[in-house]
Amino acid sequence: MKPTIKDVAKLAGVSFKTVSRVVNNEGTVGQDLQDRVWKAIKQLNYSPNLSARGLRGAASSIGFIYDNPNSNYVIDMQRGILDECRKQGYELVIHPCDAKNHSIIQEVLDMIDRSRIGGLVLTPPISENQDILKAIAERDVKFVRVLSGSSAPDELSPCVYIDDRNAAYAITEHLINLGHQDIAFLGGDEEHQSSGERLEGYKKALIDHNIKFSDRRVLPGSYSFESGVERTRMLLSSPGVRPTAIFACNDEIAAGTLFAARIQGVDVPNRLSIAGFEDSPFSRQAWPNLTTAAQPTSTIAQKAANLLIKSLRNGKKVESEGFYPELIVRESTQAP
Amino acid sequence: MKPTIKDVAKLAGVSFKTVSRVVNNEGTVGQDLQDRVWKAIKQLNYSPNLSARGLRGAASSIGFIYDNPNSNYVIDMQRGILDECRKQGYELVIHPCDAKNHSIIQEVLDMIDRSRIGGLVLTPPISENQDILKAIAERDVKFVRVLSGSSAPDELSPCVYIDDRNAAYAITEHLINLGHQDIAFLGGDEEHQSSGERLEGYKKALIDHNIKFSDRRVLPGSYSFESGVERTRMLLSSPGVRPTAIFACNDEIAAGTLFAARIQGVDVPNRLSIAGFEDSPFSRQAWPNLTTAAQPTSTIAQKAANLLIKSLRNGKKVESEGFYPELIVRESTQAP
Repeated sequence: MKPTIKDVAKLAGVSFKTVSRVVNNEGTVGQDLQDRVWKAIKQLNYSPNLSARGLRGAASSIGFIYDNPNSNYVIDMQRGILDECRKQGYELVIHPCDAKNHSIIQEVLDMIDRSRIGGLVLTPPISENQDILKAIAERDVKFVRVLSGSSAPDELSPCVYIDDRNAAYAITEHLINLGHQDIAFLGGDEEHQSSGERLEGYKKALIDHNIKFSDRRVLPGSYSFESGVERTRMLLSSPGVRPTAIFACNDEIAAGTLFAARIQGVDVPNRLSIAGFEDSPFSRQAWPNLTTAAQPTSTIAQKAANLLIKSLRNGKKVESEGFYPELIVRESTQAP
Repeated sequence: MKPTIKDVAKLAGVSFKTVSRVVNNEGTVGQDLQDRVWKAIKQLNYSPNLSARGLRGAASSIGFIYDNPNSNYVIDMQRGILDECRKQGYELVIHPCDAKNHSIIQEVLDMIDRSRIGGLVLTPPISENQDILKAIAERDVKFVRVLSGSSAPDELSPCVYIDDRNAAYAITEHLINLGHQDIAFLGGDEEHQSSGERLEGYKKALIDHNIKFSDRRVLPGSYSFESGVERTRMLLSSPGVRPTAIFACNDEIAAGTLFAARIQGVDVPNRLSIAGFEDSPFSRQAWPNLTTAAQPTSTIAQKAANLLIKSLRNGKKVESEGFYPELIVRESTQAP
């Protein structure tokens, strides 16, 4: 039998009204009570239906549009958005795309028309593309952006911003503190602001520690395993001194670096330290485990979906929120 | 500017009518012409709109309901379905769930109501759960099942069946031919038919080669990295003779096996051969590369979505199709 809102109220030991307020995100219920209600909802697998939400006829799906080659990132984003959708009784439409395609704007508008969604969660580079954002705003569709930065860049829509620069600084400083003076940087896709932000953090850490920054040690690329393999091959087979550490712009790249180092017989971490970024499953499953920065992608995604559904529900201004990835030291880095 | 059906016809060098027939899957256009049209569609990023499809007002989304802990599998399934959706101008609603939940049927029906989809792609264990299938059929929603077997099990709906048993036989035979006589089997989730089918293939290969099958060498578990780590630890730290080879029921488990072997200082493949199943990215990125069976998940998913959209469009009976995973020998297996 399908659980009802009354079952939830009973299990949580609160009134029917309180459950309704929590489900509708009215913001008038204390955190403790909210937690109790959500726990009961989860335990019963209760799903708020359209009438309980007072939304009969309104859109009950949201969309996620992305252009990202990194499966781990995409699946974590989906997981977080889906968790929030399940809580709030929404369905999720996913739409991968190529942000560089010349008809991308029409594609996004078609997607909105076909899927009848109420709003969108957007990630880089879509969330950083002004033309696309403008087109969506004109369609009167709400959206929340996940983007790289130390604050919200504008008032266009709520966003979840991630402070990549400071985290990259922390990773680089960790390598410097271990004694590394020659640290290479493997970049991600240029059209992702995160890649530039992480490079800035890397540069600043070097400069603050009086280590000369050299363009030769910065290899642009893309957020992929293959990019890591290629760039590392180039680095390790070039004549001249090898770097003693490599900071890869994400864990996929770092996994490629580890792979290429093995092929060339370079021992990690004895002769080469490797750090990634993101704390993806691979960083924990690789051998040695990768030093990285924890970017809680699922939590970020859930927050983005939460802000979106909030703005769909009550139309009031919803505040942006920030996330600060944390350094995680594992076995892939040590003194040179 | 958005490309039109005329642009596609011009680029493909065919008539407007031909493009329309291909887009509508009318089946009256030869394969060569069809390929030319799809190539032009892709090149122009043309998206058939509702009116071109003669489907104004009809559902233009399909759904994918799944219960699977394996990110690689899920993302590959999504990729294949999304490729077909893009070709045919559909959007995709994804809905993960817990098939064992007591209110799963209501959850699936709610999902159908909320998302206004035209049909569903289902994977194991959902596609093998008769109660869920019955409830969906009663809602008059079309569906296509991906399942494990050497033929379609019934006439309920079209399916894409995967011959896991024969592929598992081939993997086991490969290990036997290398000289292994003591081969352990690490199972996946029991409620997935694939796990049982692969076990049957393993058993049959042993018996056909006059090797005694022993229950002690079969360790049930789940389709996860952690399960592989745990079961392998148990195997390698038990008193008595160690197996010389491990056949893990998928690549995630095999990755866990490789990890646990490293921790215990057991050299792969010199002292332990490892084979997986699926040909997931990890099987190619692990060191050594994993011997496995290629299960072209994206192709299977695309075929399932294609069958679904066909049955949504013309209502005629759509035939089931079979897939046969192929043995891929890599560095993780050698003579004992």
